[in-house]
Amino acid sequence: MTTFAKGHGTENDFVLLDDPDGRLDLTPELIRHLSDRRAGLGADGVIRVVRSAAAGQDAAGEWFMDYWNSDGSAAEMCGNGSRVFVAHLLRRGWITLDEGDEVLITTRGGVMPVKRRGDLFTIDLGAWRVAGGPAAVAAGSDVKVTFPGMPPLPGLSIALSNPHVVVALPDVEILEALDLTVAPIVEPAPPNGTNVEIVVPLHDQSVRSELGHLKMRVHERGSGETRSCGTGTVAAALAARAWGANLAPDHWRIDVLGGTLYVDTEGTASEGDSAKLSGPAVIVAEGELV
Amino acid sequence: MTTFAKGHGTENDFVLLDDPDGRLDLTPELIRHLSDRRAGLGADGVIRVVRSAAAGQDAAGEWFMDYWNSDGSAAEMCGNGSRVFVAHLLRRGWITLDEGDEVLITTRGGVMPVKRRGDLFTIDLGAWRVAGGPAAVAAGSDVKVTFPGMPPLPGLSIALSNPHVVVALPDVEILEALDLTVAPIVEPAPPNGTNVEIVVPLHDQSVRSELGHLKMRVHERGSGETRSCGTGTVAAALAARAWGANLAPDHWRIDVLGGTLYVDTEGTASEGDSAKLSGPAVIVAEGELV
Repeated sequence: MTTFAKGHGTENDFVLLDDPDGRLDLTPELIRHLSDRRAGLGADGVIRVVRSAAAGQDAAGEWFMDYWNSDGSAAEMCGNGSRVFVAHLLRRGWITLDEGDEVLITTRGGVMPVKRRGDLFTIDLGAWRVAGGPAAVAAGSDVKVTFPGMPPLPGLSIALSNPHVVVALPDVEILEALDLTVAPIVEPAPPNGTNVEIVVPLHDQSVRSELGHLKMRVHERGSGETRSCGTGTVAAALAARAWGANLAPDHWRIDVLGGTLYVDTEGTASEGDSAKLSGPAVIVAEGELV
Repeated sequence: MTTFAKGHGTENDFVLLDDPDGRLDLTPELIRHLSDRRAGLGADGVIRVVRSAAAGQDAAGEWFMDYWNSDGSAAEMCGNGSRVFVAHLLRRGWITLDEGDEVLITTRGGVMPVKRRGDLFTIDLGAWRVAGGPAAVAAGSDVKVTFPGMPPLPGLSIALSNPHVVVALPDVEILEALDLTVAPIVEPAPPNGTNVEIVVPLHDQSVRSELGHLKMRVHERGSGETRSCGTGTVAAALAARAWGANLAPDHWRIDVLGGTLYVDTEGTASEGDSAKLSGPAVIVAEGELV
């Protein structure tokens, strides 16, 4: 008997499978079945909840977030999923996490600390860089991105645990009208594909703000447009920070279709050792697979 | 604490909420939340499982299938849902149903008998008619249906608990290439809209078959293309029966995107008192709302 929970972070949703002692035999077929939105439970991804020691993973984090995409492939990390993972560990009583304390979680992308403040969870995703380095920051872009019916637009490549290209638009109407039913064309084409984030700055860019504010849509590699992409909001903040130069804030609010996320950045304009993602985590239901 | 199950019939999926004593206060907002595929559990519809007496419904059927569409509107009936409803009652131990016996269930569309044979459940949907009567049967059609990039095609209107128009195509390649991303245009336009079923006969139509065989896609009023529509397969069988005249069988196998359903018909070419729908019912998970 396998127990599960269903939850989401800004409408990026997950099935969490309880397997503290590492006894579950997860197959790509089972992942795809569980993720199937009509024949299964339905989710963007499946997270096996297993002790790191039982999964042969780095036990610096007691619990391993064994993340799988809905297509049955394993993934390094999922920013929105990490918060739901910790919320689930708390509900199960498998960890405690007082405000101000941190818990280390193990992911395929490394061991990462998570904190909680009220209903918001914060994960530090660690090192990041503008893929093209200081030259790309100075130029403001390193690639061209083409959407259907639009001329090519400049994009900036950001390297996190997964690849991103960020494009800025001047106003929300153009953002809302953008056709994301097909993948934007990025040139030169990244060898392994890329997520594409499209942002409109909503804060006053003529003065130094304490809190930057972006509205964002995202086209995810292999998934199409989604309601939210956690690492995508981090990439968006880092690109906007590079574009804003001295006036750019380190703290960002990013509105996605599925809700609001917050990003705190550190480092130079082109690289750093810390990028923190904060947002909600909601558990909707829990039960047993039949 | 509300307990639920998630299940599907040929990939038409439902959240079933246990409410035997009629204590739940279902609101359109709750229905929409539960049906939301990312922020909720996700389903095509929500079924409240309540004793008829506790719900002020016709108690000829002990249990009332209180069916709601994912948009929060109530519906008369759902052919695929009725099987999952009965499978759930059996799992909960709220009814027994030996092979060959029947259980009466109450729906907004009337009280209907359900039987079980192995994994297949059969519901009798009762009276049906070709909307245009014998004249439409003789002509083979009463409306024109236009799909994007195609000339208008003849369609036959079938009245069940909900309206249907059925269109025949000559081969599977054309069926598979059909653009159902927009609603087909039906002329004259039915006042309350209509579901549109598109079928390709796969059986030999030059002799009288025991079992007719159709491949079908469906565009549902208000939902777009779906994986399956139970009453739609019944309408498809009734239309194909009218077109086939003396060579048409009473028993049909219909392959939809989500699986296979069976239809048994009785009556003249234009009307009858019984149309039975048979198919599988799968419970995927059960648990508690958080």
